Amino acid sequence: MDTIKKNWYSESCELWPGSTFSFEVKEVLHDERSLYQHIQVFDTISLGKVLVLDGIIQCTEKDEFSYQEMISFLPLCCHPNPEKVLIVGGGDGGVARDVAKHPQVKEIVQVEIDAMVIEVSKKYLKFMSVGFDNKKMTLHVGDGFEFMKNHSHEFDVIITDSSDPVGPAVNLFQENYFSLMKSALKPNGIVCSQAGTYWDSMELVKNTLKICKNQFPVAAYATTSVPTYPCGQIGFVIGSLDGNANLLNPVREFSLEQLKNMDLKYYNSDVHKASFSLPSFVRYEIEP
Amino acid sequence: MDTIKKNWYSESCELWPGSTFSFEVKEVLHDERSLYQHIQVFDTISLGKVLVLDGIIQCTEKDEFSYQEMISFLPLCCHPNPEKVLIVGGGDGGVARDVAKHPQVKEIVQVEIDAMVIEVSKKYLKFMSVGFDNKKMTLHVGDGFEFMKNHSHEFDVIITDSSDPVGPAVNLFQENYFSLMKSALKPNGIVCSQAGTYWDSMELVKNTLKICKNQFPVAAYATTSVPTYPCGQIGFVIGSLDGNANLLNPVREFSLEQLKNMDLKYYNSDVHKASFSLPSFVRYEIEP
Repeated sequence: MDTIKKNWYSESCELWPGSTFSFEVKEVLHDERSLYQHIQVFDTISLGKVLVLDGIIQCTEKDEFSYQEMISFLPLCCHPNPEKVLIVGGGDGGVARDVAKHPQVKEIVQVEIDAMVIEVSKKYLKFMSVGFDNKKMTLHVGDGFEFMKNHSHEFDVIITDSSDPVGPAVNLFQENYFSLMKSALKPNGIVCSQAGTYWDSMELVKNTLKICKNQFPVAAYATTSVPTYPCGQIGFVIGSLDGNANLLNPVREFSLEQLKNMDLKYYNSDVHKASFSLPSFVRYEIEP
Repeated sequence: MDTIKKNWYSESCELWPGSTFSFEVKEVLHDERSLYQHIQVFDTISLGKVLVLDGIIQCTEKDEFSYQEMISFLPLCCHPNPEKVLIVGGGDGGVARDVAKHPQVKEIVQVEIDAMVIEVSKKYLKFMSVGFDNKKMTLHVGDGFEFMKNHSHEFDVIITDSSDPVGPAVNLFQENYFSLMKSALKPNGIVCSQAGTYWDSMELVKNTLKICKNQFPVAAYATTSVPTYPCGQIGFVIGSLDGNANLLNPVREFSLEQLKNMDLKYYNSDVHKASFSLPSFVRYEIEP
Protein backbone atom coordinates (compact mmCIF):
# COMPACT_ATOMS: atom_id res chain seq x y z
CA MET A 1 0.00 0.00 0.00
CA ASP A 2 3.00 2.33 0.08
CA THR A 3 3.28 2.93 -3.62
CA ILE A 4 1.10 4.56 -6.23
CA LYS A 5 -1.44 2.06 -7.54
CA LYS A 6 -4.05 3.00 -10.12
CA ASN A 7 -3.49 6.70 -9.37
CA TRP A 8 -4.11 6.34 -5.63
CA TYR A 9 -1.40 7.16 -3.10
CA SER A 10 -1.50 5.57 0.36
CA GLU A 11 0.34 6.86 3.41
CA SER A 12 2.69 4.38 4.97
CA CYS A 13 4.42 4.77 8.31
CA GLU A 14 5.63 2.48 11.06
CA LEU A 15 3.78 4.74 13.54
CA TRP A 16 0.35 3.60 12.29
CA PRO A 17 0.24 -0.08 11.34
CA GLY A 18 -3.08 -1.61 10.24
CA SER A 19 -4.78 1.48 8.84
CA THR A 20 -4.03 4.09 6.19
CA PHE A 21 -5.35 7.14 4.38
CA SER A 22 -5.26 7.28 0.57
CA PHE A 23 -5.96 9.94 -2.01
CA GLU A 24 -6.47 9.95 -5.79
CA VAL A 25 -3.63 11.58 -7.69
CA LYS A 26 -4.12 13.81 -10.73
CA GLU A 27 -0.42 14.39 -11.32
CA VAL A 28 2.89 13.64 -9.61
CA LEU A 29 4.55 17.06 -9.56
CA HIS A 30 7.76 16.11 -7.78
CA ASP A 31 9.40 12.89 -6.55
CA GLU A 32 13.01 13.10 -5.33
CA ARG A 33 15.20 12.16 -2.38
CA SER A 34 17.06 15.00 -0.68
CA LEU A 35 20.00 14.54 1.70
CA TYR A 36 17.46 14.16 4.50
CA GLN A 37 14.23 12.66 3.19
CA HIS A 38 12.01 11.52 0.33
CA ILE A 39 10.09 14.56 -1.00
CA GLN A 40 6.91 14.15 -3.05
CA VAL A 41 4.36 16.69 -4.26
CA PHE A 42 1.04 15.59 -5.78
CA ASP A 43 -1.81 17.37 -7.42
CA THR A 44 -4.91 15.51 -6.24
CA ILE A 45 -8.62 15.10 -6.99
CA SER A 46 -9.96 16.11 -3.57
CA LEU A 47 -7.18 17.72 -1.53
CA GLY A 48 -5.51 20.17 -3.90
CA LYS A 49 -1.71 20.09 -3.82
CA VAL A 50 -0.21 17.69 -1.25
CA LEU A 51 3.32 17.61 0.23
CA VAL A 52 4.52 14.18 1.40
CA LEU A 53 7.83 13.60 3.25
CA ASP A 54 9.09 10.04 3.80
CA GLY A 55 5.64 8.67 2.99
CA ILE A 56 3.76 10.91 5.46
CA ILE A 57 1.40 13.73 4.48
CA GLN A 58 2.81 17.05 5.73
CA CYS A 59 0.21 19.42 4.34
CA THR A 60 -2.65 19.53 1.88
CA GLU A 61 -4.10 22.61 0.25
CA LYS A 62 -7.51 21.67 1.70
CA ASP A 63 -6.69 21.79 5.40
CA GLU A 64 -3.11 23.03 6.03
CA PHE A 65 -4.41 26.35 7.37
CA SER A 66 -5.72 24.70 10.55
CA TYR A 67 -2.27 23.41 11.52
CA GLN A 68 -0.32 26.50 10.43
CA GLU A 69 -2.63 29.01 12.10
CA MET A 70 -2.88 27.11 15.37
CA ILE A 71 0.86 26.39 15.79
CA SER A 72 1.46 30.10 15.09
CA PHE A 73 -1.35 31.96 16.84
CA LEU A 74 -1.59 29.84 20.00
CA PRO A 75 1.87 31.00 21.19
CA LEU A 76 1.68 34.44 19.56
CA CYS A 77 -1.61 35.27 21.30
CA CYS A 78 -0.28 34.04 24.66
CA HIS A 79 2.61 36.53 24.48
CA PRO A 80 1.96 40.20 25.35
CA ASN A 81 4.44 41.46 22.77
CA PRO A 82 5.63 38.81 20.27
CA GLU A 83 8.00 40.97 18.23
CA LYS A 84 10.75 38.55 17.26
CA VAL A 85 9.85 34.99 16.26
CA LEU A 86 12.05 32.00 15.42
CA ILE A 87 10.64 29.18 13.30
CA VAL A 88 12.55 25.88 13.30
CA GLY A 89 11.59 23.64 10.39
CA GLY A 90 8.52 24.72 8.45
CA GLY A 91 10.26 24.47 5.08
CA ASP A 92 6.99 24.76 3.17
CA GLY A 93 6.58 28.37 4.35
CA GLY A 94 3.07 28.00 5.78
CA VAL A 95 3.96 28.88 9.37
CA ALA A 96 5.98 31.93 8.23
CA ARG A 97 2.99 33.04 6.16
CA ASP A 98 0.70 32.92 9.19
CA VAL A 99 3.15 34.27 11.80
CA ALA A 100 3.51 37.36 9.58
CA LYS A 101 -0.24 37.98 9.90
CA HIS A 102 0.06 38.87 13.60
CA PRO A 103 0.20 42.67 13.83
CA GLN A 104 2.80 42.78 16.64
CA VAL A 105 5.37 40.59 14.88
CA LYS A 106 8.29 42.69 13.57
CA GLU A 107 10.92 40.11 12.71
CA ILE A 108 10.75 36.44 11.67
CA VAL A 109 13.84 34.24 11.56
CA GLN A 110 13.51 30.73 10.14
CA VAL A 111 15.95 27.81 10.14
CA GLU A 112 15.10 24.86 7.89
CA ILE A 113 17.58 22.03 7.45
CA ASP A 114 16.44 20.81 4.02
CA ALA A 115 16.92 23.33 1.19
CA MET A 116 15.10 21.05 -1.22
CA VAL A 117 11.83 21.32 0.74
CA ILE A 118 12.07 25.12 0.40
CA GLU A 119 12.80 24.90 -3.34
CA VAL A 120 10.00 22.44 -4.01
CA SER A 121 7.55 24.51 -2.01
CA LYS A 122 8.51 27.68 -3.89
CA LYS A 123 7.89 25.85 -7.16
CA TYR A 124 4.67 23.93 -6.44
CA LEU A 125 3.15 25.15 -3.16
CA LYS A 126 3.00 28.91 -3.56
CA PHE A 127 -0.03 29.18 -1.26
CA MET A 128 2.43 28.35 1.54
CA SER A 129 5.83 29.48 0.22
CA VAL A 130 4.43 33.01 -0.07
CA GLY A 131 5.52 33.14 3.58
CA PHE A 132 9.15 33.41 2.46
CA ASP A 133 8.46 36.60 0.49
CA ASN A 134 7.52 38.64 3.56
CA LYS A 135 9.83 41.57 4.32
CA LYS A 136 9.95 40.64 8.01
CA MET A 137 11.53 37.31 7.08
CA THR A 138 15.14 36.05 7.24
CA LEU A 139 15.57 32.47 6.07
CA HIS A 140 18.57 30.28 6.98
CA VAL A 141 19.25 26.81 5.66
CA GLY A 142 20.80 24.85 8.48
CA ASP A 143 20.39 22.96 11.71
CA GLY A 144 18.07 24.51 14.30
CA PHE A 145 20.18 23.10 17.13
CA GLU A 146 23.37 24.75 15.88
CA PHE A 147 21.57 28.00 15.16
CA MET A 148 20.17 28.30 18.68
CA LYS A 149 23.53 27.54 20.26
CA ASN A 150 24.72 30.85 18.80
CA HIS A 151 21.57 32.88 19.56
CA SER A 152 20.86 33.28 23.26
CA HIS A 153 18.04 35.37 24.73
CA GLU A 154 16.95 36.65 21.30
CA PHE A 155 13.39 35.51 20.64
CA ASP A 156 9.97 36.18 22.10
CA VAL A 157 8.43 33.08 20.52
CA ILE A 158 9.99 29.91 19.08
CA ILE A 159 7.81 27.67 16.92
CA THR A 160 9.01 24.19 15.98
CA ASP A 161 7.20 23.01 12.88
CA SER A 162 8.69 19.55 12.54
CA SER A 163 7.70 16.33 10.88
CA ASP A 164 6.92 13.32 13.09
CA PRO A 165 9.56 11.85 15.43
CA VAL A 166 10.89 9.40 12.89
CA GLY A 167 13.73 10.45 10.56
CA PRO A 168 15.31 13.91 10.62
CA ALA A 169 12.97 15.39 13.25
CA VAL A 170 13.54 12.89 16.04
CA ASN A 171 15.90 15.18 18.00
CA LEU A 172 13.28 17.96 18.15
CA PHE A 173 11.21 15.96 20.64
CA GLN A 174 13.98 15.58 23.24
CA GLU A 175 14.87 17.36 26.46
CA ASN A 176 18.12 18.99 25.26
CA TYR A 177 16.17 20.60 22.41
CA PHE A 178 13.67 22.16 24.82
CA SER A 179 16.56 23.29 27.02
CA LEU A 180 18.22 24.94 24.03
CA MET A 181 14.98 26.70 23.05
CA LYS A 182 14.73 28.03 26.60
CA SER A 183 18.19 29.56 26.32
CA ALA A 184 17.32 31.19 23.00
CA LEU A 185 14.24 32.91 24.48
CA LYS A 186 14.01 36.39 25.94
CA PRO A 187 12.51 36.66 29.44
CA ASN A 188 8.85 35.54 29.47
CA GLY A 189 9.34 33.90 26.07
CA ILE A 190 7.09 31.13 24.75
CA VAL A 191 7.71 27.96 22.72
CA CYS A 192 5.26 25.88 20.70
CA SER A 193 6.12 22.49 19.19
CA GLN A 194 4.27 19.84 17.21
CA ALA A 195 3.63 16.98 19.64
CA GLY A 196 1.43 14.31 18.01
CA THR A 197 -2.02 13.16 19.06
CA TYR A 198 -3.19 11.13 22.03
CA TRP A 199 -5.31 8.90 19.77
CA ASP A 200 -2.31 6.99 18.47
CA SER A 201 0.74 8.48 20.21
CA MET A 202 -0.17 8.81 23.88
CA GLU A 203 3.40 8.12 24.99
CA LEU A 204 4.75 10.83 22.68
CA VAL A 205 2.21 13.32 24.01
CA LYS A 206 2.99 12.44 27.62
CA ASN A 207 6.77 12.50 27.11
CA THR A 208 6.84 15.76 25.17
CA LEU A 209 4.58 17.46 27.71
CA LYS A 210 6.72 16.11 30.56
CA ILE A 211 9.89 17.46 28.93
CA CYS A 212 8.23 20.83 28.34
CA LYS A 213 7.08 20.95 31.99
CA ASN A 214 10.61 20.11 33.13
CA GLN A 215 11.99 23.11 31.27
CA PHE A 216 9.20 25.68 31.59
CA PRO A 217 7.28 26.86 34.67
CA VAL A 218 4.02 26.84 32.68
CA ALA A 219 3.26 24.23 30.02
CA ALA A 220 0.17 22.73 28.39
CA TYR A 221 -0.96 20.55 25.50
CA ALA A 222 -3.48 21.65 22.87
CA THR A 223 -4.94 20.05 19.74
CA THR A 224 -6.44 21.04 16.44
CA SER A 225 -8.48 19.22 13.79
CA VAL A 226 -6.56 18.41 10.58
CA PRO A 227 -8.58 15.91 8.49
CA THR A 228 -5.66 14.58 6.44
CA TYR A 229 -3.41 13.81 9.41
CA PRO A 230 -3.71 10.35 10.98
CA CYS A 231 -6.66 10.37 13.41
CA GLY A 232 -7.71 13.74 11.95
CA GLN A 233 -5.92 15.58 14.69
CA ILE A 234 -2.55 17.01 15.70
CA GLY A 235 -1.33 18.40 19.00
CA PHE A 236 1.13 20.96 20.31
CA VAL A 237 3.02 21.51 23.55
CA ILE A 238 3.33 25.13 24.60
CA GLY A 239 5.71 26.32 27.29
CA SER A 240 6.10 29.78 28.80
CA LEU A 241 8.95 31.25 30.86
CA ASP A 242 6.39 33.54 32.51
CA GLY A 243 5.37 31.65 35.63
CA ASN A 244 2.12 33.65 35.78
CA ALA A 245 1.05 32.94 32.21
CA ASN A 246 -2.36 31.39 31.62
CA LEU A 247 -1.95 29.74 28.22
CA LEU A 248 -5.65 28.85 27.97
CA ASN A 249 -6.67 32.52 27.79
CA PRO A 250 -5.16 34.54 24.96
CA VAL A 251 -3.56 37.83 26.07
CA ARG A 252 -4.73 39.40 22.86
CA GLU A 253 -8.16 38.69 21.36
CA PHE A 254 -9.19 39.54 17.80
CA SER A 255 -12.78 40.03 16.66
CA LEU A 256 -14.16 37.81 13.90
CA GLU A 257 -14.01 40.80 11.55
CA GLN A 258 -10.36 41.45 12.43
CA LEU A 259 -9.56 37.77 11.86
CA LYS A 260 -11.22 37.89 8.45
CA ASN A 261 -9.22 40.97 7.52
CA MET A 262 -6.04 39.21 8.66
CA ASP A 263 -7.01 36.31 6.33
CA LEU A 264 -7.22 33.79 9.18
CA LYS A 265 -9.51 30.87 8.42
CA TYR A 266 -9.24 28.69 11.51
CA TYR A 267 -7.92 30.48 14.62
CA ASN A 268 -10.13 32.54 16.90
CA SER A 269 -10.18 33.13 20.66
CA ASP A 270 -12.91 30.55 21.31
CA VAL A 271 -10.96 27.92 19.39
CA HIS A 272 -7.82 28.94 21.32
CA LYS A 273 -9.50 28.30 24.68
CA ALA A 274 -11.21 25.11 23.47
CA SER A 275 -8.02 23.62 22.04
CA PHE A 276 -6.70 22.87 25.55
CA SER A 277 -9.76 20.80 26.55
CA LEU A 278 -8.83 17.13 26.69
CA PRO A 279 -11.00 14.01 26.70
CA SER A 280 -11.30 12.19 30.01
CA PHE A 281 -9.17 9.20 28.94
CA VAL A 282 -6.28 11.61 28.32
CA ARG A 283 -6.81 13.44 31.60
CA TYR A 284 -6.84 10.12 33.48
CA GLU A 285 -3.32 9.61 32.08
CA ILE A 286 -1.79 13.07 32.48
CA GLU A 287 -3.52 14.33 35.65
CA PRO A 288 -2.43 11.67 38.13
CA MET B 1 -11.10 0.56 -3.71
CA ASP B 2 -14.50 -0.55 -2.40
CA THR B 3 -13.77 -4.21 -1.97
CA ILE B 4 -11.47 -6.26 0.19
CA LYS B 5 -8.07 -6.53 -1.44
CA LYS B 6 -5.23 -8.43 0.17
CA ASN B 7 -6.97 -8.24 3.56
CA TRP B 8 -7.43 -4.46 3.47
CA TYR B 9 -10.89 -2.90 3.47
CA SER B 10 -11.41 0.60 2.05
CA GLU B 11 -14.37 2.84 2.75
CA SER B 12 -16.29 3.95 -0.28
CA CYS B 13 -18.98 6.60 -0.38
CA GLU B 14 -20.28 9.12 -2.87
CA LEU B 15 -19.96 11.76 -0.12
CA TRP B 16 -16.15 11.66 -0.20
CA PRO B 17 -14.72 11.18 -3.67
CA GLY B 18 -10.95 11.25 -4.12
CA SER B 19 -9.84 10.06 -0.69
CA THR B 20 -10.45 7.05 1.51
CA PHE B 21 -9.57 5.36 4.77
CA SER B 22 -8.55 1.69 4.82
CA PHE B 23 -7.87 -0.86 7.52
CA GLU B 24 -6.27 -4.30 7.63
CA VAL B 25 -8.74 -7.11 8.29
CA LYS B 26 -7.99 -10.10 10.51
CA GLU B 27 -11.35 -11.78 9.93
CA VAL B 28 -14.67 -11.04 8.21
CA LEU B 29 -17.17 -11.82 10.99
CA HIS B 30 -20.35 -10.92 9.11
CA ASP B 31 -21.30 -9.87 5.58
CA GLU B 32 -25.01 -9.76 4.71
CA ARG B 33 -27.64 -7.48 3.20
CA SER B 34 -30.64 -6.68 5.37
CA LEU B 35 -33.91 -5.20 4.08
CA TYR B 36 -32.33 -1.77 4.51
CA GLN B 37 -28.59 -1.96 4.06
CA HIS B 38 -25.37 -3.92 3.61
CA ILE B 39 -24.09 -4.94 7.05
CA GLN B 40 -20.46 -5.96 7.60
CA VAL B 41 -18.50 -6.66 10.75
CA PHE B 42 -14.72 -7.06 10.70
CA ASP B 43 -12.13 -7.99 13.24
CA THR B 44 -9.14 -5.79 12.42
CA ILE B 45 -5.43 -5.41 13.17
CA SER B 46 -5.52 -1.88 14.59
CA LEU B 47 -9.14 -0.87 15.30
CA GLY B 48 -10.63 -3.88 17.09
CA LYS B 49 -14.10 -4.87 15.86
CA VAL B 50 -15.54 -2.60 13.15
CA LEU B 51 -19.19 -2.19 12.03
CA VAL B 52 -19.65 -1.05 8.42
CA LEU B 53 -23.04 -0.15 6.90
CA ASP B 54 -23.34 0.38 3.13
CA GLY B 55 -19.56 0.74 2.86
CA ILE B 56 -19.25 3.39 5.59
CA ILE B 57 -17.61 2.82 8.99
CA GLN B 58 -20.21 3.25 11.74
CA CYS B 59 -18.11 2.42 14.76
CA THR B 60 -14.81 0.88 15.69
CA GLU B 61 -13.88 -0.59 19.04
CA LYS B 62 -10.95 1.86 19.19
CA ASP B 63 -12.85 5.14 19.15
CA GLU B 64 -16.66 4.60 19.23
CA PHE B 65 -16.81 5.89 22.83
CA SER B 66 -16.13 9.44 21.70
CA TYR B 67 -19.18 9.54 19.43
CA GLN B 68 -21.51 7.60 21.76
CA GLU B 69 -20.62 9.59 24.89
CA MET B 70 -20.85 12.98 23.20
CA ILE B 71 -24.17 12.38 21.40
CA SER B 72 -25.57 11.14 24.74
CA PHE B 73 -24.06 13.40 27.39
CA LEU B 74 -24.20 16.72 25.49
CA PRO B 75 -28.04 16.74 25.56
CA LEU B 76 -28.36 14.86 28.89
CA CYS B 77 -26.13 17.37 30.70
CA CYS B 78 -28.02 20.31 29.18
CA HIS B 79 -31.29 19.06 30.69
CA PRO B 80 -32.02 19.67 34.38
CA ASN B 81 -33.85 16.37 34.77
CA PRO B 82 -33.40 13.94 31.84
CA GLU B 83 -35.57 11.09 33.17
CA LYS B 84 -37.07 9.65 30.00
CA VAL B 85 -34.94 9.34 26.87
CA LEU B 86 -35.81 8.24 23.32
CA ILE B 87 -33.08 6.92 21.04
CA VAL B 88 -33.89 6.74 17.31
CA GLY B 89 -31.49 4.49 15.41
CA GLY B 90 -28.41 3.41 17.34
CA GLY B 91 -28.90 -0.28 16.52
CA ASP B 92 -25.43 -1.20 17.76
CA GLY B 93 -26.45 -0.34 21.34
CA GLY B 94 -23.59 2.04 22.10
CA VAL B 95 -25.75 5.12 22.71
CA ALA B 96 -28.10 3.13 24.99
CA ARG B 97 -25.07 1.88 26.91
CA ASP B 98 -23.87 5.44 27.56
CA VAL B 99 -27.28 7.07 28.15
CA ALA B 100 -27.82 4.52 30.93
CA LYS B 101 -24.68 5.84 32.68
CA HIS B 102 -26.33 9.17 33.49
CA PRO B 103 -27.60 8.93 37.09
CA GLN B 104 -30.86 10.85 36.44
CA VAL B 105 -32.04 8.69 33.53
CA LYS B 106 -34.89 6.39 34.63
CA GLU B 107 -36.28 5.09 31.35
CA ILE B 108 -34.77 4.56 27.90
CA VAL B 109 -36.91 3.81 24.85
CA GLN B 110 -35.18 2.94 21.58
CA VAL B 111 -36.57 2.56 18.06
CA GLU B 112 -34.26 0.97 15.48
CA ILE B 113 -35.57 0.15 12.03
CA ASP B 114 -33.15 -2.65 11.14
CA ALA B 115 -33.46 -5.76 13.35
CA MET B 116 -30.43 -7.29 11.70
CA VAL B 117 -28.13 -4.53 12.99
CA ILE B 118 -29.31 -5.31 16.52
CA GLU B 119 -28.79 -9.06 16.04
CA VAL B 120 -25.35 -8.64 14.52
CA SER B 121 -24.32 -6.26 17.28
CA LYS B 122 -25.52 -8.67 19.98
CA LYS B 123 -23.46 -11.42 18.36
CA TYR B 124 -20.20 -9.61 17.53
CA LEU B 125 -20.15 -6.18 19.20
CA LYS B 126 -20.97 -6.93 22.83
CA PHE B 127 -18.98 -3.89 24.03
CA MET B 128 -21.85 -1.84 22.55
CA SER B 129 -24.85 -4.19 22.57
CA VAL B 130 -24.49 -4.45 26.35
CA GLY B 131 -26.63 -1.29 26.20
CA PHE B 132 -29.66 -3.43 25.36
CA ASP B 133 -29.34 -5.46 28.56
CA ASN B 134 -30.00 -2.49 30.82
CA LYS B 135 -33.15 -2.75 32.95
CA LYS B 136 -34.14 0.84 32.09
CA MET B 137 -34.33 -0.14 28.41
CA THR B 138 -37.31 -0.86 26.11
CA LEU B 139 -36.30 -1.73 22.54
CA HIS B 140 -38.69 -1.46 19.57
CA VAL B 141 -37.92 -2.56 16.03
CA GLY B 142 -39.64 -0.09 13.73
CA ASP B 143 -39.69 3.32 12.12
CA GLY B 144 -38.82 6.27 14.36
CA PHE B 145 -41.21 8.52 12.42
CA GLU B 146 -44.18 6.23 13.00
CA PHE B 147 -43.26 5.71 16.64
CA MET B 148 -43.13 9.42 17.41
CA LYS B 149 -46.46 10.06 15.69
CA ASN B 150 -48.01 7.97 18.47
CA HIS B 151 -45.98 9.36 21.35
CA SER B 152 -46.57 13.05 22.01
CA HIS B 153 -45.04 15.02 24.89
CA GLU B 154 -43.38 11.94 26.39
CA PHE B 155 -39.62 12.43 26.36
CA ASP B 156 -37.15 14.74 28.06
CA VAL B 157 -34.39 14.00 25.56
CA ILE B 158 -34.47 12.53 22.02
CA ILE B 159 -31.17 11.34 20.53
CA THR B 160 -31.01 10.48 16.83
CA ASP B 161 -28.07 8.17 16.20
CA SER B 162 -28.34 7.82 12.45
CA SER B 163 -26.01 6.86 9.66
CA ASP B 164 -25.11 9.50 7.06
CA PRO B 165 -27.80 11.14 4.90
CA VAL B 166 -27.55 8.60 2.11
CA GLY B 167 -29.72 5.46 2.22
CA PRO B 168 -32.17 4.69 5.03
CA ALA B 169 -31.26 7.71 7.21
CA VAL B 170 -31.92 10.48 4.68
CA ASN B 171 -35.30 11.42 6.20
CA LEU B 172 -33.76 11.99 9.62
CA PHE B 173 -32.07 15.19 8.41
CA GLN B 174 -35.27 16.90 7.26
CA GLU B 175 -37.57 19.53 8.74
CA ASN B 176 -40.60 17.28 9.28
CA TYR B 177 -38.44 14.95 11.34
CA PHE B 178 -37.35 17.79 13.63
CA SER B 179 -40.95 18.96 13.87
CA LEU B 180 -42.04 15.44 14.88
CA MET B 181 -39.30 15.25 17.53
CA LYS B 182 -40.52 18.55 18.93
CA SER B 183 -44.03 17.14 19.33
CA ALA B 184 -42.68 14.04 21.09
CA LEU B 185 -40.82 16.13 23.69
CA LYS B 186 -42.05 17.21 27.10
CA PRO B 187 -41.84 20.95 27.86
CA ASN B 188 -38.21 22.14 27.92
CA GLY B 189 -37.14 18.94 26.14
CA ILE B 190 -33.91 18.62 24.17
CA VAL B 191 -32.95 16.86 20.93
CA CYS B 192 -29.51 15.87 19.66
CA SER B 193 -28.88 14.55 16.13
CA GLN B 194 -25.85 13.48 14.15
CA ALA B 195 -25.18 16.28 11.65
CA GLY B 196 -21.93 15.67 9.75
CA THR B 197 -18.77 17.77 9.73
CA TYR B 198 -18.04 21.16 8.19
CA TRP B 199 -14.80 19.84 6.70
CA ASP B 200 -16.58 17.97 3.92
CA SER B 201 -20.30 18.59 4.45
CA MET B 202 -20.68 22.30 5.10
CA GLU B 203 -24.08 22.42 3.39
CA LEU B 204 -25.36 19.54 5.50
CA VAL B 205 -24.17 21.27 8.68
CA LYS B 206 -25.73 24.58 7.67
CA ASN B 207 -29.03 23.00 6.57
CA THR B 208 -29.42 20.77 9.62
CA LEU B 209 -28.63 23.66 11.97
CA LYS B 210 -31.06 25.90 10.09
CA ILE B 211 -33.83 23.30 10.38
CA CYS B 212 -33.10 22.85 14.08
CA LYS B 213 -33.20 26.63 14.62
CA ASN B 214 -36.52 26.81 12.76
CA GLN B 215 -38.07 24.32 15.17
CA PHE B 216 -36.35 25.13 18.47
CA PRO B 217 -35.89 28.49 20.21
CA VAL B 218 -32.31 27.53 21.16
CA ALA B 219 -30.07 25.50 18.86
CA ALA B 220 -26.34 24.98 18.34
CA TYR B 221 -23.82 22.80 16.56
CA ALA B 222 -21.03 20.89 18.32
CA THR B 223 -18.30 18.49 17.19
CA THR B 224 -16.20 15.67 18.54
CA SER B 225 -13.04 13.93 17.38
CA VAL B 226 -13.57 10.41 15.96
CA PRO B 227 -10.39 9.27 14.17
CA THR B 228 -12.04 6.63 11.98
CA TYR B 229 -14.77 8.91 10.61
CA PRO B 230 -13.98 10.86 7.42
CA CYS B 231 -12.05 14.03 8.40
CA GLY B 232 -11.62 12.55 11.90
CA GLN B 233 -14.60 14.47 13.16
CA ILE B 234 -18.38 14.30 13.50
CA GLY B 235 -20.89 16.95 14.50
CA PHE B 236 -24.25 17.21 16.23
CA VAL B 237 -27.10 19.69 16.24
CA ILE B 238 -28.73 20.21 19.61
CA GLY B 239 -32.06 21.97 20.05
CA SER B 240 -33.85 22.93 23.26
CA LEU B 241 -37.48 23.90 23.83
CA ASP B 242 -36.33 25.96 26.83
CA GLY B 243 -35.79 29.43 25.38
CA ASN B 244 -33.46 30.30 28.27
CA ALA B 245 -31.21 27.26 27.85
CA ASN B 246 -27.47 27.83 27.41
CA LEU B 247 -26.35 24.67 25.66
CA LEU B 248 -22.66 25.56 25.94
CA ASN B 249 -22.73 25.30 29.72
CA PRO B 250 -23.80 21.95 31.16
CA VAL B 251 -26.55 22.19 33.81
CA ARG B 252 -24.95 19.29 35.61
CA GLU B 253 -21.18 18.93 35.95
CA PHE B 254 -19.40 15.74 37.00
CA SER B 255 -15.92 15.63 38.55
CA LEU B 256 -13.20 13.63 36.80
CA GLU B 257 -13.45 11.04 39.56
CA GLN B 258 -17.22 10.75 39.09
CA LEU B 259 -16.75 10.37 35.33
CA LYS B 260 -14.22 7.58 35.90
CA ASN B 261 -16.63 5.79 38.21
CA MET B 262 -19.37 6.17 35.58
CA ASP B 263 -16.97 4.55 33.07
CA LEU B 264 -16.94 7.60 30.78
CA LYS B 265 -13.77 7.84 28.69
CA TYR B 266 -14.34 10.95 26.59
CA TYR B 267 -17.00 13.34 27.93
CA ASN B 268 -16.26 15.91 30.62
CA SER B 269 -17.54 19.43 31.25
CA ASP B 270 -14.52 21.11 29.64
CA VAL B 271 -14.96 19.02 26.50
CA HIS B 272 -18.69 19.85 26.56
CA LYS B 273 -18.01 23.60 26.51
CA ALA B 274 -15.19 23.30 23.98
CA SER B 275 -17.23 21.18 21.55
CA PHE B 276 -19.27 24.23 20.50
CA SER B 277 -16.21 26.30 19.49
CA LEU B 278 -16.06 26.56 15.73
CA PRO B 279 -13.20 27.52 13.40
CA SER B 280 -13.40 30.96 11.83
CA PHE B 281 -14.18 29.66 8.32
CA VAL B 282 -17.29 27.98 9.71
CA ARG B 283 -18.33 31.05 11.69
CA TYR B 284 -17.94 33.23 8.57
CA GLU B 285 -20.57 30.92 6.99
CA ILE B 286 -23.04 30.49 9.84
CA GLU B 287 -22.82 33.87 11.63
CA PRO B 288 -23.83 36.20 8.81
